This record gives sequence, C-alpha cells and structure tokens, in this order.
Amino acid sequence: MTDYINEFCMHDATCGELRKSDVGREVTLCGWAWHNRDHGGLIFCDLRDRTGYTQVVVDPDCVPEEDFHKAEHLGREYALQITGTVRDRGADAVNPNMATGEIEVLASKVNVLNESVTPPFSIEDGIETDETTRMKWRYMDLRRPEMYQSLRLRHTVAQAMRAALNERGFIEVETPILANSTPEGARDYLVPSRPNPGKFYALPQSPQQFKQMLMVGGVERYYQIARCFRDEDLRADRQPEFTQVDIEMSFVQETDVMDLMEGVFKEVLAAAGVQHEFPLQRMPWKEAMDRFGCDRPDVRFGMELVELTDIVRGCGFGVFSKAVEAGNVVKCINAKGAGNWSRGDIEKLADVAAANGAKGMAWIAYTDADAELAGKSPIIKFLGDEVHGAIKQAAGVEPGDLLLFAADTYDTASAVLSALRLHMAEALNIPREGHALLWVVDFPMFKYDEEEKKYAAEHHPFTMIPEADWDKIETDPLACSSYSYDIVMDGFEMGGGSIRIHNAELQKRVLRRLGVEDEQMEEKFGHLIHALELGAPPHGGIALGLDRLVMLLAGKQSIRDVIAFPKTSSASDPMTGAPNAVTGRQLKEVSLRLL
Amino acid sequence: MTDYINEFCMHDATCGELRKSDVGREVTLCGWAWHNRDHGGLIFCDLRDRTGYTQVVVDPDCVPEEDFHKAEHLGREYALQITGTVRDRGADAVNPNMATGEIEVLASKVNVLNESVTPPFSIEDGIETDETTRMKWRYMDLRRPEMYQSLRLRHTVAQAMRAALNERGFIEVETPILANSTPEGARDYLVPSRPNPGKFYALPQSPQQFKQMLMVGGVERYYQIARCFRDEDLRADRQPEFTQVDIEMSFVQETDVMDLMEGVFKEVLAAAGVQHEFPLQRMPWKEAMDRFGCDRPDVRFGMELVELTDIVRGCGFGVFSKAVEAGNVVKCINAKGAGNWSRGDIEKLADVAAANGAKGMAWIAYTDADAELAGKSPIIKFLGDEVHGAIKQAAGVEPGDLLLFAADTYDTASAVLSALRLHMAEALNIPREGHALLWVVDFPMFKYDEEEKKYAAEHHPFTMIPEADWDKIETDPLACSSYSYDIVMDGFEMGGGSIRIHNAELQKRVLRRLGVEDEQMEEKFGHLIHALELGAPPHGGIALGLDRLVMLLAGKQSIRDVIAFPKTSSASDPMTGAPNAVTGRQLKEVSLRLL
Repeated sequence: MTDYINEFCMHDATCGELRKSDVGREVTLCGWAWHNRDHGGLIFCDLRDRTGYTQVVVDPDCVPEEDFHKAEHLGREYALQITGTVRDRGADAVNPNMATGEIEVLASKVNVLNESVTPPFSIEDGIETDETTRMKWRYMDLRRPEMYQSLRLRHTVAQAMRAALNERGFIEVETPILANSTPEGARDYLVPSRPNPGKFYALPQSPQQFKQMLMVGGVERYYQIARCFRDEDLRADRQPEFTQVDIEMSFVQETDVMDLMEGVFKEVLAAAGVQHEFPLQRMPWKEAMDRFGCDRPDVRFGMELVELTDIVRGCGFGVFSKAVEAGNVVKCINAKGAGNWSRGDIEKLADVAAANGAKGMAWIAYTDADAELAGKSPIIKFLGDEVHGAIKQAAGVEPGDLLLFAADTYDTASAVLSALRLHMAEALNIPREGHALLWVVDFPMFKYDEEEKKYAAEHHPFTMIPEADWDKIETDPLACSSYSYDIVMDGFEMGGGSIRIHNAELQKRVLRRLGVEDEQMEEKFGHLIHALELGAPPHGGIALGLDRLVMLLAGKQSIRDVIAFPKTSSASDPMTGAPNAVTGRQLKEVSLRLL
Repeated sequence: MTDYINEFCMHDATCGELRKSDVGREVTLCGWAWHNRDHGGLIFCDLRDRTGYTQVVVDPDCVPEEDFHKAEHLGREYALQITGTVRDRGADAVNPNMATGEIEVLASKVNVLNESVTPPFSIEDGIETDETTRMKWRYMDLRRPEMYQSLRLRHTVAQAMRAALNERGFIEVETPILANSTPEGARDYLVPSRPNPGKFYALPQSPQQFKQMLMVGGVERYYQIARCFRDEDLRADRQPEFTQVDIEMSFVQETDVMDLMEGVFKEVLAAAGVQHEFPLQRMPWKEAMDRFGCDRPDVRFGMELVELTDIVRGCGFGVFSKAVEAGNVVKCINAKGAGNWSRGDIEKLADVAAANGAKGMAWIAYTDADAELAGKSPIIKFLGDEVHGAIKQAAGVEPGDLLLFAADTYDTASAVLSALRLHMAEALNIPREGHALLWVVDFPMFKYDEEEKKYAAEHHPFTMIPEADWDKIETDPLACSSYSYDIVMDGFEMGGGSIRIHNAELQKRVLRRLGVEDEQMEEKFGHLIHALELGAPPHGGIALGLDRLVMLLAGKQSIRDVIAFPKTSSASDPMTGAPNAVTGRQLKEVSLRLL
C-alpha cells in the first residue's frame, strides 16, 4: 500500500514524497505546521502529514501580503494548505536526516484551514509525556509519527493475515457480539436486554462455540478478525477488549492446522518486513516446561533449567535432600556474567523467587577470578565437594557464573526458575534481537484445580483427546494428552488452538469429568451436543492475539501503543473508552431491565 | 478466491470440482451424505461439501465387506471420507443439472467420520421450513448451499471493499466497542463496569466520534468494517447489531468523497458480478422528494409523482381546493395497468394511504375500453372537465391507467404517494431487475421536531453547513443546507455521509441551535470541541450498511439470510444470539455494579 494519496482531496502532493527530481513542480500540500521560524525576513515552516515533513518557505516577495501576514502568525499544529513551487535547497541547506531534505517548497499561497490552541505536548517521536496526558489528548498523541506507524503496521498485519487466509479458501464470517455466556473462564461483560427483563447478553470471550457451529454448518474454512471481551484488570499486555484472529477448519488433523498456519505466518511476517526460518520447531509441552520452566519459552537466549534432582538426592544440604525425599525437584539456572555480583545484589533475587512461590533461594557464585571454581555460597559446605562438582558439571560452570536454585514441587520450581531466567536476561542485557516463533504441543488435557478441588481443562473443554487416552478420562485424567498447540513468539503466547471433539459421547464424557452434572448438560451444552450429533465433521483451529503480535512486531512494550483508543486505569476522557457516569434515565432503564 | 481446497486436510479433491478430464484419478473426498439409495445391489450416495455434489458408488465387489456394510447403513448428513476412482458415468446416466454430472466416484474405501441423527429439515435450497425451526437448528440451515453462497458473497463484498480502500491509501483502524454514549438518536445498549460502580459503557451506534478523532489525529484516511448497535426492535431489514463500512477522509470536499466512493462501488459491484453505469446520478434531496416522495427512491421504474397543486387551485372538489388554500399540496401517481381494477380493489388502496397519514384517497380509473378517457370516479363531477383535462395531461393518462391522489402537507403527501408507488409496483409486478444506485445530495441541515418542539439534525449534528448559510443557523434554520449525501440502492438507503464541521465555533453554534445549553456543552461535547480547537483538518466521510448491501446483491428479502447468526424475535436458542437467563451470581454482580 501507499501513503501517497493525491487523488480526491485538497492537495496534489504529500509532505513525504517530494525529491530533487520534483524541483520546478508546482504543488499543493496539506498538513500541520510543526516547527515555524522566522529567519532573515522569511518564514520557514516544517509542514507535516502522515507521510513525512516538507520545509515550506514563505517569502514576502512571493505571496500576497495577506498570506505573509498569516504565515507570520502561524502557531504549532495549525492545519494548512500551501501552494508553491518545489526548489532545490542548495548544498549548504540540505538536511540529510529528512527524506525531503534536499528540497523545499517556496509558497505562493498560504491558506489556514484551521487554527490551533497550544498543543498539550510536542507532536514528535520519543516524548516523555506521562501516559495520562497522552491518553487525555489521544488524538494529539496519534499525530505523532510513531503512533501512526504503529496503526499502519497493525493494518498491514491484519490485511496480510486476511490475504493469506483468503488464498487458502477461508471465508470471513461475522459472529454475534451480543451473545451468550460460555464457559471460558474469565468474567463476562453483561448487557441487559430491554424487551426481555431479567435476561442478559454476554459479550463473547471468544467466538469458540460460534466457530464450531460454523464447522457443523459446513463452512469448512472460517476466519474472523474478532473483537473479544474479558472483564479482567488492565495490564500492559492485556486490554478488556482485544482482537483475535480466529480460525477454524474442517476435515483436518493437528499437523494440517500447524502446517497451514506456518504458511500464513510466513506471509504475515514478510509483510511486516520480518524474515524467519520455517518450518517452525514443535516442542512438546513437557520439554518446554523441563527446559524453560514455562509453556511459552523465549528461545532467543539460553540459560536453560538444569535438572539436579538425582545429583542432590541424599546430599548434606537439607533443603535439597528433603525436597527430593518429598518427591519434589531441584533445578537451577546458570546466569553467566552475574558471578561477580555482590552478595546483597544476589540475595535480592530471592524476592523474584518468592513472588513466584519459592520459600527461599539458594545460590552459588563464581567470580571471574575464581579459576578453580571453588564458588562462594553458604550452601557449599553442606553440599560437599562431590555433589558440588556434579552440579558444576551439569550446569557447565565457568568463572563469572551465578547458579540460582529452586527446590520445590515441579510446578513451583518451574515458575521460579522461569521468572529468574527472564529477570536475569533483562538484568544482564542478554541480546534478544529479532523474533523467535515456535510451537508448543501436546498439552495435557486436564489439570487439577487445588482450590476448587476438581479437574479443569488445560486448554478448553472442547479439545480432542488422542484415542489411545480415551480410557483414561475416567481412570487417570492427568495422564490424558490432547491435540493442542500454542504458537509462542518472543516469550509470549501469541496464539493457541486445538483439534476439537466432534463426537457427542466423547464430549459428554469430558464435560462429566469437569464436573458438569447430567442435569446441567442439556441446559448448558445442549446446543453443542445436539450439533455434534448431526454429522459434525472433524475440525480444529487456532486463535491468535493480534494486539500482542503487532506489539511485538512494532517493538513496543505496551499494547496501548498499537491500539488507537485503548483503555487505561487512570484516564477518564471519553476518547480512551473509559466508562461514563450513568444518567438517571439510563439507571432507571437498566434497573427495569434487571427485574 | 477458490473454494477448492485440497491442501492440509483429509481430502485431496472436493465434491464440486471433478470433471470428465479427471476420469481414472484416485481421489479422497470428505463431505456429507445427502441422498443415499440402494439400486441393483449397489449403494449410491450424493456426497456434498460447500463446493457441490459428487455421486459416489459403493460396489460390494470393490470395497471391504465392512465398508459395504457401513454404506448400506448410511443416514442423511453422515460425515464421510470416501476414497475411490473417478469414472465416466456413461451417456445414459449423465446428470446435466449437476456440475459433476458426467462422472462418479467408485469407492474403494468408506470411512464414517461421524454419524447423524435424523436432520430437522432437508438440507437443500428453497425449503419452506418456518424460520423458527431454521433458526433453532441454524447450523443445519447453514449447510444449505444457498446459505453458504450468501456468506461467501458477504465475504467477497467485504474483501473487495477492503481491497478498494487499501488501494486508495486508507488504513483500517479498530475503535472501541466498550465506548461512551453519543447522541445518535437510538437507544444505547449499556454495559455496567465492574471496577467503576455506577458507571456504564455504551455499545457504539456508530464510530462517528472516534473516526472524527482519528482525522484530528492525522490518520487522514480511515476505514473500518465496524459492528454497531442500536437497541431497537427487529425488522426484516434491521438487526440490533449490524455491520457498517465506516469511512473517513481528511482534506476533502463533498465531491471528493463521492468521486472516490464511486470508484470503490464500481470495484465492489464488479466483485459481486454486477455491472453498473458510472458516474452515478446526483439527485438533490428536494428533487427526490418532489419526484418520488422519498429520499431513497427506487429509480428502476417510473410512476413518478405528478404536481397538481396549481391545476386544482380553486377547483370544485373541496378536498383539493381547501388543501391548496391551506398551503398544502395536491399530487398524484399514475399506476398504469390498474385502471381495470374493481372499485373494491381500488378503494382498498386507501388503507396504504391511511397507514402513511392520509385522511382519505381520491382516485380516477380509466379502463382499457375507455378510449375517450372519460374516467370513472366519484370526484370527476366535482373537478369539472377543464381541471380533469389538465390533470390527464399532466399525468399523461392513457386507457388502462389509474390515478391515485394525495392532498395534504408536503411531507404527508410525499409519504403517501411514495408508499402507494411502491405498493403498486409490487401489485402490478413492474419489473425491477438489476440494481440502481444514485446519490441523493443537499439534505437540509435541520428539521423541526413537532413532538419535542425543537430543531433536530436531519443527518447529524456534526454535518458541515455551506458557508453561505451560516448566518441562517440562528435566523432561519430550516433554510440551511448541508454538505451531506446518501447513497441509495434499489430503494434502500445503502449509506450516508457528510462533510463534518472542523471549526469549534461553528460546531458550538449548531449544537446551541439543537438545544444544547452552554453548561452541557463541555460535559457532553467537550472532547469534540477541544479536538476541533487543535488544528482539526477539514474532513468528511460515509458509512455504508454492509448487511443491506449484501442482502440486495444476494437478492434476498431479509437481512437474516445474509448473517450467520442473526437475532430473531421468536428463537430462544443460544445459537441465534438470543439473550439468556441471568444466573443468581450474575444478577448479584450486575446489581453491585449499579450501586
């Protein structure tokens, strides 16, 4: 696509396109006065539109007196229409930092389309203005070039996604936003229905059930760039309304979906200017947990988890040996380069461990000067030389290394070391350039929810179980695997999907295992069960987080930088979509709808 | 786009693609058993997928015994995977009504992917099943070929719209669905906010204010295929959630938007297989009202309104002459071909007139035999020959014609004759083939709301007024024109737009004229006014009703036939997006949010 649009508008050139080859051309530009200055009796103005900047010169000898007067009184962010002639700036005046730096436009006409009061902050990249101010004046924030570039990248990614899917026989189908509660886990937004007092719509957390119905309905290949809603608290990488690329296919197996999506990813990344190796790695869930302590590993750097359970079994350090005795695990990471840190700095890392559930954090540091790898740590004397030696060997210790340990349940040790690994990568400035995508596959079907004292679905209740594991649904649920897959990018879960259950009986068995009583089955899941009974085809799909994908591709830290009007916890301006105070009339109306 | 997708799935050919040239090919098909029959010891099955049908033959000599047994017990809508060899049907057996009618597939393997209970209705086009049943089993309804074709057409139209806009430098930007109340006229859907008790989101009736903010934000060319919400009652051409192609441009004048959009329409219609003449007619609002009695005329047929006010001034028929005295108008339409109708049938038309506000309906009928055009009507004797003669001349009366009159205020007479015109076109089966698009332009800025006793905006309060009319905002508002335009298709308003006000002072004057008090100005419109004060560019746009456009292109009577999961007043199944009963927990939660 091009940003240079000179048809059907009040300009015939844009501020980003003029070059030396245009010298002599008469042009009309529209844009905003960015930087205005008076120099040697001439007025200079950098005129900005979404394509870039062009320097405009207003010479009192070349414009009507009235126009020169206007130019003398230009303020920042005035909307202007300038007619003039493109001329060479001359070698001395060339600005190599500007795409149009070799030329300028000598005005013959200055038309103020709209004036501006003083802007709340400067319209340029990299400003330090606090977020509350930027959100309050979001429309001014959007005028900053980097914001437009983010929106444009988002557009490019969405269109590339559509093009890739269209080419593969998918059709985009819209599913309702005024929908029904579905068991997705998060809190629903509820919309009282006026003609049906006591009844509510729920905004969809995902179109999961609708897209499965489309597969039952014979659409075969569906996608939608769909708005989804979860009434959760705000985070830098989470918004209460978010956009999902939602995809579903019929007559497929697990590898079909992954193979097809790799072709789609390749085209989308290329459109965003990113090269990536294909096919992608497919890492079993267990391997991801063992090696990285989490199911969305950032594989752009090492510092993998080291298994030490067998090594420390029965050793003299009670924390380790007792953990092993209790059936727990002992693992460590090797943070190369942190061995010279002060004891105080190292011990502060225990906070990161504690925040992830650890009761303490053992460590051993090896300074650069420690050629013998004697190590420094309160725990060495308890470990003894032999065990310490085995640990060093397992962790590949060299001078300058820092070992950080976790001795806990498998889940807690994984969470602790995964968090420490990411923390140390940040602290040590480990390069994480470019992008790394991989699949994580073979998630377990069920997990046991200790709080609720029942089984829950690891992915969701509609995920297909390999036939060999069907017998275990009732007898050994935690051993059931599933046909599910996440696509992980740079340590974020960019998307996830599965093959779905298309057999009504199997679906009922899974729902029973999740605690759905037979009497609830019809009410809550009847529509799905009945659909599966009517020749539902084998089907599966995936959902991708568009906001997160664009955030990563744009190199931004927050999803708020890739959405035009995000929600913020602080802002109260309507433009950021913050809720507004209800009027008496509205309150009465909603109350009526409730009864 | 193609529907023949044989990569990354369980089949290597689709049911619609096999031809004589494929004879001898070994293929695997997936689809649904449509029509199964046993003939001469062989099992025949028409296998259906979204691309079409293929006849499958299962011969006990060519498949394992077990597979033949499966084939013998096939039910309708079983999901199947069939492997076999394409063979010539032989001249006798060719089915010319079937795209694949020259071939059949001789099965070597029959795999039942899923069984089906008896379907609630037959999966074929043109069924007479009532809508409630179709909606309850919507996923089965969607399996009918015509429903898939509608969804596919909708996809094609949406993608063509995007492609045409992308090419013209527009970027798609998503705006919030959890938004704020804006003054669009209809009732809002309200969503209580959990962390802000007593505060609500409103679902947007259109992204109008957001898109204006994007123009202030320098995006220059924006579009969005946006979901919008109006809490109104259901109609065949209206759903409470609907989809709008929302478009806005900066630095433009009225003709720029219309010129650009004609290029877009041309490409979209071509994608849907429709040819249309361009440029489009641009009919002033007043002319549309005068000639057709409405601002969205179906110009595919004549029967235009005939102005008779001056002719009947002071005539002997009191109903007419008194109307003229009172400053009202007298007009008629000439329904050619209805002159032979019985008096009873003609007088029933008065119901149509009455439903649109008429107190009565005068008429004159001329039978085919009435070569002298003497006419038949109770009113002729009062009119007198001269006036009757002038009426006949004005209406171009020939034998067989029927004149239907309205004598009322301009607005009521227009509404009555517009309704009669459409009614008579239907009754007389007047051909309305193909499609007719035109612009209706120059809407008045204001109208007077008799009920509320105040001025209201004809289009919306943000519409630009030609500079020559600015003085009239306070002194003669009904004389203010506006830069606004509707795009009309086949008698439906397919879209509408305007140039917007970009000047804060002018915006305030218009809002004051609409009754916004100065003290409400900041609270209700502060964000807009402030944005206009910060160098807002001249801008304008349009919004198109995608549902209606697709309905017309698909030749359907109801929007429900072009939406996958529409809302219906009768259906209570969750698949149609009907609201569900609130649980105790949800009720408590919403009540808490209200306080």
